[in-house]
Formats: sequence, C-alpha cells, structure tokens
Amino acid sequence: MKFSDIVQQLDLTTEKSSLKPFPERDPEITAVTPVQAGTAGTISYIEGQKFQAYVATTESSALILPEDPEMQAQASDRGLAWVSMAEPRWGFAQALALFYQPYQPHPGIHPTAVIDESVQLGKNVTIGAHVVIHPDAVIGDDVCIHANVVIYPQTAIGDRTVLHANCVIHEHTQIGADCVVHSGAVIGSEGFGFILREGRWVKIPQSGRTILEAEVEVGCNTTIDRPSVGETRIQANTKLDNLVHIGHNCQIGPSCVMAAQVGLAGQVETADHVILGGQVGAANQTSIGANVQAGAKAGLHGKIAPGSIVMGNPASPYRTFLKSSAIYNRLPQMQHTLKELQQQVATLQQQIETLNP
Amino acid sequence: MKFSDIVQQLDLTTEKSSLKPFPERDPEITAVTPVQAGTAGTISYIEGQKFQAYVATTESSALILPEDPEMQAQASDRGLAWVSMAEPRWGFAQALALFYQPYQPHPGIHPTAVIDESVQLGKNVTIGAHVVIHPDAVIGDDVCIHANVVIYPQTAIGDRTVLHANCVIHEHTQIGADCVVHSGAVIGSEGFGFILREGRWVKIPQSGRTILEAEVEVGCNTTIDRPSVGETRIQANTKLDNLVHIGHNCQIGPSCVMAAQVGLAGQVETADHVILGGQVGAANQTSIGANVQAGAKAGLHGKIAPGSIVMGNPASPYRTFLKSSAIYNRLPQMQHTLKELQQQVATLQQQIETLNP
Amino acid sequence: MKFSDIVQQLDLTTEKSSLKPFPERDPEITAVTPVQAGTAGTISYIEGQKFQAYVATTESSALILPEDPEMQAQASDRGLAWVSMAEPRWGFAQALALFYQPYQPHPGIHPTAVIDESVQLGKNVTIGAHVVIHPDAVIGDDVCIHANVVIYPQTAIGDRTVLHANCVIHEHTQIGADCVVHSGAVIGSEGFGFILREGRWVKIPQSGRTILEAEVEVGCNTTIDRPSVGETRIQANTKLDNLVHIGHNCQIGPSCVMAAQVGLAGQVETADHVILGGQVGAANQTSIGANVQAGAKAGLHGKIAPGSIVMGNPASPYRTFLKSSAIYNRLPQMQHTLKELQQQVATLQQQIETLNP
Repeated sequence: MKFSDIVQQLDLTTEKSSLKPFPERDPEITAVTPVQAGTAGTISYIEGQKFQAYVATTESSALILPEDPEMQAQASDRGLAWVSMAEPRWGFAQALALFYQPYQPHPGIHPTAVIDESVQLGKNVTIGAHVVIHPDAVIGDDVCIHANVVIYPQTAIGDRTVLHANCVIHEHTQIGADCVVHSGAVIGSEGFGFILREGRWVKIPQSGRTILEAEVEVGCNTTIDRPSVGETRIQANTKLDNLVHIGHNCQIGPSCVMAAQVGLAGQVETADHVILGGQVGAANQTSIGANVQAGAKAGLHGKIAPGSIVMGNPASPYRTFLKSSAIYNRLPQMQHTLKELQQQVATLQQQIETLNP
Repeated sequence: MKFSDIVQQLDLTTEKSSLKPFPERDPEITAVTPVQAGTAGTISYIEGQKFQAYVATTESSALILPEDPEMQAQASDRGLAWVSMAEPRWGFAQALALFYQPYQPHPGIHPTAVIDESVQLGKNVTIGAHVVIHPDAVIGDDVCIHANVVIYPQTAIGDRTVLHANCVIHEHTQIGADCVVHSGAVIGSEGFGFILREGRWVKIPQSGRTILEAEVEVGCNTTIDRPSVGETRIQANTKLDNLVHIGHNCQIGPSCVMAAQVGLAGQVETADHVILGGQVGAANQTSIGANVQAGAKAGLHGKIAPGSIVMGNPASPYRTFLKSSAIYNRLPQMQHTLKELQQQVATLQQQIETLNP
Repeated sequence: MKFSDIVQQLDLTTEKSSLKPFPERDPEITAVTPVQAGTAGTISYIEGQKFQAYVATTESSALILPEDPEMQAQASDRGLAWVSMAEPRWGFAQALALFYQPYQPHPGIHPTAVIDESVQLGKNVTIGAHVVIHPDAVIGDDVCIHANVVIYPQTAIGDRTVLHANCVIHEHTQIGADCVVHSGAVIGSEGFGFILREGRWVKIPQSGRTILEAEVEVGCNTTIDRPSVGETRIQANTKLDNLVHIGHNCQIGPSCVMAAQVGLAGQVETADHVILGGQVGAANQTSIGANVQAGAKAGLHGKIAPGSIVMGNPASPYRTFLKSSAIYNRLPQMQHTLKELQQQVATLQQQIETLNP
C-alpha cells in the first residue's frame, strides 16, 4: 500500500504531511513497526519525549508525527514520508488495522460441538470444535465461539461477541454485544460465600447472576463470580486484563480499565473511567469514584474520592505515598538522629541545671 | 411459599416471630433478596449495624431479624412479617436453599466422553461431553464431572464430588467426598522444582501427589501443585477462592479459608481455621497457627502464633500495622520536625557555650 | 535397586561413601523420601543446616550427604549407607529420576482430535483426545499434546515439547524444543492495548507474536501476551511458575526463574538468571539486570542494576528494606519520642531565655 493511500484511508488528507512539498515521496508500505525497529518499507509513529530522538535515526520509510514543526522538518530533511496528527498513537492503531486481519474462523457449526436442542442460535454464528452449550442459552448474530468453550444453561451471548478457546460461561450469565472473552476466563461462577456453623464452613447458595454489558473485554484466565442474590455487573466498554478476579456483587462502572492480577473482593463499586494498575486489591465494599487511578499493588478500602490518584497499601494520595516511600529508606538514619538528639537534649538539661543558681 | 411455611422449614417455629401476634400476616414469598433491594413478596435478613436502618425502609414483605426487641417492634409496626434468630445470615442461607436449585445436569455418561476402560465408575455418575479420563482412575458414586474436564491416570474422586468445566486433575491426585472443584482449576500439577547445574535450570522429578480431603472447595483457575516427594495436602472443609496458588508439599489444616489470589510457596503449613485475605502471600516453610487471620496483601514468613491477627508485609500484629501505617503518611512531617529539632538543639548548644564562664 | 547400584548410576563411585569401609552395607532401596519422612528401604539427602540434625534420627536406610566428615562419621556409626557429594540435592534429583517415570501417554493421534489438514505433524507425535489444531501449525517430532489443548493457526511447536491439558496456544506463537507448557496456560493471547477516543476505549490491533525459546517451562494457568507489533520473547531455559502474567513485548532473558503470581506489565526487559519471588510485580518498561533477585511481593520499576537483591514496594536493596521494615513497627514510638523532644527543647529554650541577662 502506498503511503498516500494510508493517509487517505486514515482520513488525514487535510493534516500537515510530506505529501504537499514532496508528492513524489510516496513509498510502498508493507508493515507497521515500532519506530526503534523500523526498516525500509515500514511506517512507525512518534509519541512522547522518549521516542522523539528516533526521528533522527529510524530506518522506517514513513512516520506518523505529532503536531511539532521541528520534528516534521527533521523528518523532511531525512527524506522520510510523514503525516502529522494530534494523537499519533491513534494513527498507529488505525494503520495497524489496515495491515492486520485478526484470525477469524470460518462461520458455521463444527460437527463435534454439542449444542442442546433448546439453544437459540442467531444468524451467521461460528461455533468451534468440541464446544458445549447447555439448555436454554441464547446466542446472538455473528457470535464466534472458539474451540472447547463450555456454556452452562440459561445464558445469553450478545451479537458479535467472541468467546476464545477453553473459557467457561456459567449459568444465568448475560453477556452483551461486541464483548471479547479471552481464553480460559470463567464468568458467572459461584461467589465465595460460606457461613461458619459449629466450626465447619457451610456454603451459602449462590443464586444470583453475572452481567457483562456491551463492549466489555475479559482477559485470559480472569474470573468473575456471581452473587448469592442479586447481580455482579460490569458496565459497557470496561476492559479487564488477564488473571483479574472480580468478586460477587461487584458493580463496575463503564469504561474502566483493570490491569493484570487486580483482585476485587465482594460488593466493590466503581464509577466510570476508573483505572487500576497491576495487582491492585480492593477490600469488601470498597467504593471507588469516577476517574480514580490506583498505582500498581495499591490496597484500596473504604471510599476513594472521584479523580483521586492513589498508591500504596493502605492507599494514600500518590504525592504523599511518593514522599513517604522515599523517606522509608531513611528510617534507620532517622532513628539514629532521634537517639543523638535525645542524648544532646539530656546533656543540655544537665548543663542548664548546673548553670541555674 | 407462605412465610409460615418458610418458618416451619427453617425449623424456627419456637423462635420469636410476627406469627404469634399476627398469624394472619402471612405473605406469599417468591424470592430471597438483599434487604436494600427488597420488593413485595420477598424475604430478606438484617445482620450488623450497617443494615439495621433498613428495617424502617425496606420494601421486602418479610424479614429474618436478630434477637433485638426494638427491631422486632419496628418491623411489626410497619406491618412486616418477621422471625428472629441468633444468626440471621444462616436463616438467609437456608431460605435461599428453599428457592434456588443449583444446576444439576442429567446423570449419565455423554457419548463424546473418552473414558479408559480401566477406569472404575461409581453408581449414578454424571460425566459431561468431551470429558477425558485416563487409565486407573476411580470415580465415586454420584460424582458429577462437567464438560471438557481432563483427569490424568491413577487418580481418585470421592463420592458426590463435583468437578466443573475445563478443570484438570493430574496423575496420582486423590480428591475426597463432597468436594467442589470450580472451572479451570488445576490440581496435582508438577511442583516448581529446579536445580541450577552449570548455569542451566534442570527439573527435579515431581513424583509426589496431591490430596484433598472431604468437603474441600477449590476456586476457578486455582492451582495446587504436587511435590517432588511426599504429599501436598488440604484437610477437610477448607475453602479456596479463585486464582489461589498452593505450592508443593503444603500441608493445609481443616476448615481454613483463603480469599482470591492468595499464594503459598512450597512447604507452607497451617493449622485449622486459618483465614487468609485476598492476595496474601506466604514464603517457603511458613508455619501458621490455628485461627490466624491475615489481612489482604499480608506477606507471611516464619512462624505465626495461633490466634494472631496480622497485616502488612512483612506481617505484623494488626494493631501495630494500623498504627504504623497511619504514621507512614506523616513521615515527611516527621522528617521536617527532626531537622527543626536538630537546628534548635544546635542553637541551644551555642547559647549555653556563650553563657558558660 | 541396591544402594551400590544407585551410587554407580549417579556416577558417584569415586566419591567418599560407606561402601569402602562397609561394602556389605548395601541395602535394597525402593524409594526416595525427604529425610524427615524416611523409612527402612528409602534413600534421602541432607543439605543445609536445618536438616543436619536428621542424620542422628532419620529412619532412611541410606543418605546422600554433603562433604562433611562429621556427618559421614555419624551416619557410619548409625549403620547407615551413605555417599557424599558437593550438592546432595542434585544427587536427590538424579536418584528420583531412577525411581519415577512421569506419565507418558501412548504415542499416536486420538481419533477425536480435530486437526486441520494443512497442519504439519512431526514423527512420533502424541495428540490426545479432543485436541484442536487450526491451520498451518507445524508440530515437531516427539511432541506430546495432552487432551483438550487448542492451537490457533500459524504456530510452531518444537521437538519434544509437552503441552499439558486444556492449555491454549494463540495464533503466530512459536514454541521451541524441549519446552513444557502446563495445564490451563494461555500463550500468545492479545496484548492489553487500548486507546481512549471520546471517552471510550478502542482496541489497538495486536498483530505481533510470542516466542518461547528452547527449554522454557510455563506454569499452570499462566498467561503470556503478544504485542501490537513486534515480539514477546522468553529466552531459553527460563522457568515460569503458575498464574504468572507476562505482558506484551516483554523480553525475558535466558535461565530466569519467576515464582507463582509474578506479574510483568508491558515491555519489561530482563537479562539472564533473574530470580523473581512470588507475587512480584514490574511496571511498564522496567529493565532488570543479570542475576537480579527480587523478594516476594517486591514492586519493580525503572532500572534494576545487575546483581542487585531487592525487596519492598517500591523495591530497595534488601539490607535497606530489612532495616526499614524493622523500624516501621516502631514508628508510633518514634513519633512519641519526637513529641517529647519538642517539649523538652521548648522548655530548654525558655530556661535559657530566663538565664540570659
């Protein structure tokens, strides 16, 4: 694909680019690469200070640049093709989509799939080998279910949703349209509810259900439990990474992002656009406001005010955490100073007593 | 079901209830709900200060109350049906069981299951589609094995145990009666044992086995390793949540509870009734006494005395941890105070020198 | 097997042993056991101070001892057979291999496996029941693929590699020779890459691939993502425990070891022989030098110098961490001392003012 075709397909023809001064500079592009690994015939992008220096050295033939005249001039001087835009990473994502077609198995139902006759199948579904679908499931149009997935009874899978290999959807779960459930994830399993009776743990029946709204993405081997009563709900466009645990009755807002190995205990609530770093944990009934960001490994509990950026366990505002954690390593010295001061003050007290008449 | 029927089935007829003063107040109950989400025709329960206020506002028709005359009077005044008991949550669990029947597939062996002819099958077993059972497994009576489970050779599964979809039971594993293994869990896999020889890691054969005693519950995608020699053992009635890791040779006592994402390294021992919060970790050879409770994210090592409540990493008694973590955020101020004091003391020292003859 | 046969097979005939003074002391050995659980007819090993005392009490018939004349004399006095070597644990590993044959299913392709006709199969492969292999996979010689594994298209599996039950290998993944992927692991799944557009997260295509070099071992339910462009790579002989997460574009050096529940965010790099304890996390773009060791639960970011031993979050040199964490619990007392000093200094200041003329 010519560079000029990419500019056109990304709808960037009205942006600044090398095509106006140098229309003949229109290399054939065959791949999208990171700028540090660019080769002739590839297009890359520059975003952030760290990568700026690569404009002078990259071997990519074309660049998606930020709106920075200096970088643009530098790219022109090196004979590179370039186009600029406010968010080059978005251009990169779109360019990638021009070159990369995700694997899409042929539609149709594999003869080894075991599908109960009560199951309602939408149009144009893809159901892989050895899939098992129990009674009363409703599968939407254009759904793709990869090999060895198991779907328990009385579930619903929305249009265009993809379930990757070996994941398990438990009874009563409802998954919206345009969701992606990655390999090995388990959704709607029994919440962890027991009651101690005469020294033995007895299970509380887990009669509730789990609901994923539209455009939710669930990472590999992530687990989302259902509650004893009521719902566990993940609102639209929320994205969960691998090995995340979401406990019973959690109510997760829309467009949240949780990195790998986050764990939410029962009844955690979040508003929208919450971002949790890797290995963050939240205690039972934690309530997290809109746009909160929690650094990796933070331990959350109670109420976290909207817009907060927190770190540490228990979590504090990130400035406080950064200051305190910097001092943490000086604790031995602080303790030493404290002892010195105690001695000095004791000496002063003696001296003053001596001076007093 | 009438409210009075529920009282009878829960064996609460001798407890205080609204039925004695108001026998005609006997609503038809169709579901169990949390008190905050109650509607006409549902029964809820009240336990703990947080929920007490709902007696005045809930729209549930019936309540399971604690032994508190004030709440009981308030419920009577609002025209609600109620029954009281020492542990209302236990009443709730029992009431749920009256209304909710967990999914139970039809007994029988699905024709797509691949079962070695040496396998011994008990009476009335349920074996789902695409299950694979390798040689010399012994499957007890009334066992339910869901779709796509794989059982390696020379294993035993006790009576009435349930293995959910896509879990894997490795060679030599023994699982007791009345256990539940949730979807995607892996039991009896090779311990993580290597030895460094001339700069390369060489595997130590993992010839031991994993044993789960009766009534053990293993969460989704949880992993329990077997050792190089000897046993990894989980004693009766212990409950593990999702994504937990139990290392080789661990010896876990009876009736313990481990929340999601707990990780135990090799050779960890616990006594009974240990409770570990989410994301707790324990180092190699940690020894944990009876009734220990560890807060979420605690890091355990060495010996933890019976009955301790610990938090933090490395774990400390919880009171110490709470005090210290509260002060942690004041470290910058403490450091500032320390510098001020140093200056003040230096000034005092000079002044005293001046005063001295 | 006679004790003398074990000495011969372990190639220890030139080492010091009980066979020279007592050639007739040559018990029949039927198993390898931990020294604390030894019984007649078993062989055990002694390594480390903790286990030294067992020489006096073990009921094992034979011991692999360190090069310690005192222990050797003690074993001789008790009538035990023994052989000494520099690394007794290595002898133990080798002795185990003499007695334990890991489960190896019969070679051949199970009739229920679904293998695309474009797949290239090596010689002597074992493919279990219900395995699914998508188009254009290349499977090496002597590969063993256990039941219910799913392999997406355009992958390569090296000679003698073992894929345990229910694991998933995603498109474009390349796995080297002599690797082991344990049950439930997912390799080459989509990296967690989204870009926020008008308040909604939009997926960045994940067109890269994941590469495992030779002798890599991947634990149960561990997940390794592929990147949007480029490669995620694990170099030869690196060993990952269960429930580990490796993010997109990570470049892991050779002969590293990561304990259970370690999580690496995107673009983490390590040199060789890095050892990460359980639940360690590393932030985006962390760069970890050769031979670094990180204690359990450490939080890594930035650059970690080769040979460092670090602990804590954020991670510090372990000596600093141990000192600071010891003082952490004395923070309440330090705060109290600080207040006392403030009062004492104030009093001194007043007294000096009074003294001044």
